[in-house]
Amino acid sequence: MNCEIITIGDELLIGQVVDTNSAWMAQRLNERGIVLKQITSVHDDAEHIVAALDEAFNRADIVLTTGGLGPTKDDITKKVLCDYFHTRLVPSKQVEKHVRELYKNRPDVLNRLTATQWLVPENCTVLTNRVGSAPIMAFTLNAKRSTLNAKRLISLPGVPHEMQVGMQEQVLPWLMEQLPDMAQTIAHRTLLVSGIAESSLAIILEKWENALPDCLHLAYLPKDGTIRLRLSLYEDAIDVLDDQWNQLKELVQDYLVVDEDKPLELVLGQMLLAKGQTISTAESCTGGRLAALLNAHSGSSAWYWGSVVAYDNSVKQNVLGVPAEVLEVHGAVSEQTVRCMAEGARNLTHTDYAIATSGVAGPTGGTPDKPVGTVWMAWATPDGTYAECFHLGSGASGASSVSREQITARACTKALLGLIRILRKID
Amino acid sequence: MNCEIITIGDELLIGQVVDTNSAWMAQRLNERGIVLKQITSVHDDAEHIVAALDEAFNRADIVLTTGGLGPTKDDITKKVLCDYFHTRLVPSKQVEKHVRELYKNRPDVLNRLTATQWLVPENCTVLTNRVGSAPIMAFTLNAKRSTLNAKRLISLPGVPHEMQVGMQEQVLPWLMEQLPDMAQTIAHRTLLVSGIAESSLAIILEKWENALPDCLHLAYLPKDGTIRLRLSLYEDAIDVLDDQWNQLKELVQDYLVVDEDKPLELVLGQMLLAKGQTISTAESCTGGRLAALLNAHSGSSAWYWGSVVAYDNSVKQNVLGVPAEVLEVHGAVSEQTVRCMAEGARNLTHTDYAIATSGVAGPTGGTPDKPVGTVWMAWATPDGTYAECFHLGSGASGASSVSREQITARACTKALLGLIRILRKID
Repeated sequence: MNCEIITIGDELLIGQVVDTNSAWMAQRLNERGIVLKQITSVHDDAEHIVAALDEAFNRADIVLTTGGLGPTKDDITKKVLCDYFHTRLVPSKQVEKHVRELYKNRPDVLNRLTATQWLVPENCTVLTNRVGSAPIMAFTLNAKRSTLNAKRLISLPGVPHEMQVGMQEQVLPWLMEQLPDMAQTIAHRTLLVSGIAESSLAIILEKWENALPDCLHLAYLPKDGTIRLRLSLYEDAIDVLDDQWNQLKELVQDYLVVDEDKPLELVLGQMLLAKGQTISTAESCTGGRLAALLNAHSGSSAWYWGSVVAYDNSVKQNVLGVPAEVLEVHGAVSEQTVRCMAEGARNLTHTDYAIATSGVAGPTGGTPDKPVGTVWMAWATPDGTYAECFHLGSGASGASSVSREQITARACTKALLGLIRILRKID
Repeated sequence: MNCEIITIGDELLIGQVVDTNSAWMAQRLNERGIVLKQITSVHDDAEHIVAALDEAFNRADIVLTTGGLGPTKDDITKKVLCDYFHTRLVPSKQVEKHVRELYKNRPDVLNRLTATQWLVPENCTVLTNRVGSAPIMAFTLNAKRSTLNAKRLISLPGVPHEMQVGMQEQVLPWLMEQLPDMAQTIAHRTLLVSGIAESSLAIILEKWENALPDCLHLAYLPKDGTIRLRLSLYEDAIDVLDDQWNQLKELVQDYLVVDEDKPLELVLGQMLLAKGQTISTAESCTGGRLAALLNAHSGSSAWYWGSVVAYDNSVKQNVLGVPAEVLEVHGAVSEQTVRCMAEGARNLTHTDYAIATSGVAGPTGGTPDKPVGTVWMAWATPDGTYAECFHLGSGASGASSVSREQITARACTKALLGLIRILRKID
C-alpha cells in the first residue's frame, strides 16, 4: 500500500525552514511496512493544495499532510480540507475539552482565536493531539466503497514535536486498525565504509551487484569521506537478503567501519562502554560539535565526561596547559599543539581517552602553509598519543570552496573514525 | 516566472537523509526574484521521475532536479533525462578534461566507472561542476518556440557541496543570461518576538493584519518558545512594505527581540563585538551546543573565547571549581551549582560574560522534584550573576514527551535570549 506526504507552508518554499518532518515520518512508515511514494511541499495556497491532493490520490492510498493548522490567518489547511470534502466546520466537544485542559494554567492563551481550534470538519475523525491545540483530522474517501479499498487522508500539525507524538500515539495505530492488511515487507540494511572512492568500491562490487536478485536494490550514499551502502528489500524474502548481506560484508571487509546504520559516536560509545572506559575532548576548530555528538544520546554520561572548547589561545594555555612556547613556535594549528591539548584534556578530566582538534575552519584565516581546511588532530590514549593532519577544505578538485560547517562536520567524522580505529588496534 | 525542484533519491523517501538541498536552493532562487512553486521528492525510479517532470512542467517554466548523477548503478537520472529528451549519451571532451584534471593526483579514482561521468546527453548544455565529477546538465524544452518562452530543466548533483557551488557559479548565472526578464520583486522581512503566545499575538495584530493590502502576506513561525513573524511581498511595492513593516514593529515592540531573520547567537555576538566584550560557556545539559552556536560564524573568535563542557560532576568540580558540598547538598541541577559553574567559567577563561546550563535532558534521569526538562541557567556578568529555572520538558499540556534534542535546543534559545536581555538592561 502506497503513501504520500504533502507538507504545507510558504516557509518551506522560500527556504526559511528545512522540512525535517518528512524524513522522520518516512522512517516510521517504513518501520510499519508502508512504502512512501512521494513527498510534495506546497505553499499555503488553496488551489495548489487541492491540486497536490488530487495528484497524490491518483498514486497513493494514504496521504498524510503536515502544516497549516495554527489558529492564525495564514494557516488555511483546515478550511481547504473542508471544501475538498464538501463539508463544514462544526464545534467538537472532544477537542474543546482537550484544549481547555491543555491551557488550564494559561488563561491568556484561552482566547477567541484559540477557540477556533475546536472547530473541525463535520465528517472527519478527530485524533487527539496530546501536546498541542490543533486537532489531527482523519478522512476516508470513497466511503461508499468497502472500507479496505477506501483511501485515507490524515492532516497533522507541522510543529515537529506535535507531529511526532501524534504519529506515534494516534496516526500509526489508527492506520493499522483501519487497514490491517496494508503492511508489506520492507527491510533496509546499511553498513558504513571508509578509505575508498565510490567508483572504486562499485568496481569491487560490480560482479556481485550485477548478479543480485531483482528483489534487492543496492544504494551508495557518500558523505564526509565515508560511504554508506544500503541493501533494500520490498518483498517477502528475508532469507535472500540475509544471504546477500553476508556476501556484501565479506566483499567490503577491508573498508568496513560498522555494519549497521548507526552514528559513529554511538559506535565509539558502545566500544567504550564495553571496556568501562571514558572519553573527553579538547576542541578548537570543531568548537563543541564533537562534545555535542558524544552526549547526544541518552546514557552517554557513562562514558563521556566533558570537554574543553579552547577557541582562544589563552584557553588552550590556561585551561589545557599548552605551553606558551609551543603556541608561539609551532602555532595553534600544529601537531605539537594538538598533542598538548589532547594530553591536557585527558589529565584535566581524568578520562582514558581524549580527542583534540585544531584547524582552520575558514572562510578566513588560511595561509599558504595552512590553507582553509587544514586540521590537526590528536588522540591521547593510555598507550600514548597519536596525531594526524587532514586537509578537509577542498573538494575533489583541490578548490577551496568547502564551507566552515562542512569542514567542521568532516573533522568530527575523522576524529571519531580515528579513535574507533585506534581502539580496534588495541583490542 | 515559476520554478520547481525535484529531488531524486530513495534515501529521501525512506527517511535515511533529510533534504536540506531544497531549502538552500529556495533561498538562492528567492534572492534572485524567482518564485519556487513546489518541491517534489521521488524515488530513483524512471517512470516516477518522468511523471514528476511532466507534472512540474505543467506548472513551472524552470525545473531544477538534484540527485541520481553518481557513477554507480543506483543512479539513473542521466539515463532518464536522455530518454525524456529523446537523445543519446555521447562523450564530452569538456567533461573528460575536467574530470581528468580533478583526479590527476588520484589515479585509482580515474577508473572505467568514473569515465562514464563524461558521457552526457547529446542535446544538453554542460555546466561545469567545479568540485565534482558529475556534470551539471541544462536542457531547453520547446526549442522551436522563442528562447524566452521555452522552458528549462537543469539537473544538479545531490551532494550538497557540489549542488551549492554549481548553483552559485553556474546555474543561477546561466538562468539569468537565458531568461533575463524572469526576475520579479520578492521581499521577505522577518522579526523575532518572545514572551507571548501565538494566538495572543495574533489578537494584538488582528486589526492591522485585516487591513493589510493584498500584496502583503503575514506568516507566524513559532519555534522553541519564540515566534518569527514574516511579512512577504511578491509585487513591485517596496514602499508599501516599508510602511507596514514599521507599523508591525511598533505593534510588537513589547515582545521584540530582533527585527531581522538573524540567529540569536549572531545578535548576541554583534552586541558583544560593539562593546569589545567576550563570552564563554559552562555547559552540562546543553553539552557543547551553545559553544557550537557561538562559534558557528566566521569572526566569532573576536568575542567567543571558549567553553567547558562539564558533563560529569568531577569536571564541574575539578575544572570549574564547583565546591563538592554544593553538588552534594543542592545537586548538579540547582541554582547554586549553575551560579558556581558560570562564575568558574568566567574566571577560568577571563571573559566578561559566561553562561552556565545544568538540567535534566532526558529521556531518563527525571525525578518528581526535577522532572525531565528542568534546566537551571546562570549568566555571570561584570555586575553580578543572574540565575533562572526553566521547565522545557513539557508540551503546552505539561505532558513530558519532549525529546532530549528539543530540550537542549530550547535551553540554548533561553540561554542566548537571557544574556541578550541582560545586556540590553545594562545599556
